[in-house]
Amino acid sequence: MIETVSTAKAHGGTQGVYRHRSRETGTEMVFSLYLPPQAESGARLPVVWYLSGLTCTHANVTEKGEYRRACAERGLIFVAPDTSPRGDNVPDGEGYDFGKGAGFYVDATQDPFARNYRMYSYLKDELPELIERNFPADMSRQAITGHSMGGHGALTIALRNPARFRSVSAFSPIVAPSQVPWGEKALGFYLGSDRSAWRAYDTVALIEDGARVAEILVDQGTSDTFLEQELKPELLANACAKARIDLTLRMQEGYDHSYYFISTFMEDHLRWHAERLHR
Amino acid sequence: MIETVSTAKAHGGTQGVYRHRSRETGTEMVFSLYLPPQAESGARLPVVWYLSGLTCTHANVTEKGEYRRACAERGLIFVAPDTSPRGDNVPDGEGYDFGKGAGFYVDATQDPFARNYRMYSYLKDELPELIERNFPADMSRQAITGHSMGGHGALTIALRNPARFRSVSAFSPIVAPSQVPWGEKALGFYLGSDRSAWRAYDTVALIEDGARVAEILVDQGTSDTFLEQELKPELLANACAKARIDLTLRMQEGYDHSYYFISTFMEDHLRWHAERLHR
Repeated sequence: MIETVSTAKAHGGTQGVYRHRSRETGTEMVFSLYLPPQAESGARLPVVWYLSGLTCTHANVTEKGEYRRACAERGLIFVAPDTSPRGDNVPDGEGYDFGKGAGFYVDATQDPFARNYRMYSYLKDELPELIERNFPADMSRQAITGHSMGGHGALTIALRNPARFRSVSAFSPIVAPSQVPWGEKALGFYLGSDRSAWRAYDTVALIEDGARVAEILVDQGTSDTFLEQELKPELLANACAKARIDLTLRMQEGYDHSYYFISTFMEDHLRWHAERLHR
Repeated sequence: MIETVSTAKAHGGTQGVYRHRSRETGTEMVFSLYLPPQAESGARLPVVWYLSGLTCTHANVTEKGEYRRACAERGLIFVAPDTSPRGDNVPDGEGYDFGKGAGFYVDATQDPFARNYRMYSYLKDELPELIERNFPADMSRQAITGHSMGGHGALTIALRNPARFRSVSAFSPIVAPSQVPWGEKALGFYLGSDRSAWRAYDTVALIEDGARVAEILVDQGTSDTFLEQELKPELLANACAKARIDLTLRMQEGYDHSYYFISTFMEDHLRWHAERLHR
């Protein structure tokens, strides 16, 4: 059961925002979904998942991501979930980088977070099932991407579910949360102090432990203020080289961490995914 | 003298936000300006002005307008001014449709608004001079467009200064403010009860009174909730027909009044302006 929050015609298709009660998070969850004009034919269309970064909701990429034109040209459904459970009854953390708006795409095991912070299972099972039931989505053709914490989400979910996705990319992802302040804080609170439990939610650790995808596309701005301390794409490059994963890592001169960067390269990513989804 | 609020690389160019003290409004004014990558060559580039609608600042189109890709491809500078003076000392109106965020691009003559609400002169003289001094702008090649109240601004400023602009277009413009509730309220407060003074700020009246441009492009959504009461594009069509102005009025099926509509047709407008600016 989903409730339509809003719809608007855009680039020939429909940009919608929807709300539903989530069994995983125990809360109402909101997501946006762009249905391209090709849906009018009655065909089921491939799906691109976009996972957002710290502090974001579905709205940031929906307003600033500049994806609709490229999706309309290529017949792609674009889904943007929220980044955490929300609501007065949901426990929050201190700071912008943990708690609401910062779910890190994990299933928390620690009190008081374990009840609601189940974004991994929400995105692995619940939301895909809901989308398949309510929209003309061809779930045999899925791609996933995301930004920063959402790039971390895209890479880890793809590595743990490689058969589900035909392609995975990321914009300035957190690639090794176990080794950087953002990740150490969040994974510690959500998963506890035993760091071995963190490896299932760490891209570099997953690859070290044998998880594989065929190829990965990553764009990273060189003027990103989080580059050296939080993002460390060289750790992903090293892990992929050892694992013989075909990583295309593009260091984009002068770009920062914002949606001005994301929107600049969004079409590139959608073209790359479309080539693999339409094969 | 301008102060840089922020800059970010985007689509190979620079999206900036700038602040300056305005002699016209007596306040600090903020605007955004996108400098496309062609500026690196040292050449002076044509300028597209975008005037925003009720409640907006420079930020709405800067975040949601999806203009940068098209400007980068075509070498266009894109300037987005604010819609009114701002600040604690600026008198405000009641409601969203008058006062701050709703300057209607007029020079007010009525107290207490006359001191600050001088958006017409600000856009006619002060801001163009500032832009020419601070950016590589070729002021012999200017175009102007806008949305809703900003479409009204674009059309009236172009009709009153036809030699300045090579082209003018609008998204869902208020074309006859003297004949609709939004305009009657705002022009009454800013200009007083003598309606003859309103004609200089009314597109249809200006055309009736002999003002001319060669051609106008207008897109208007058919599902726009303001269409019948506030926008009335048929009044523009009638006035242009009588005046032999070449109006392209495109009624866009199913589109509303939002940035989902604007961003869908932004590239069309920029292509249309670029053809005239690069002639």
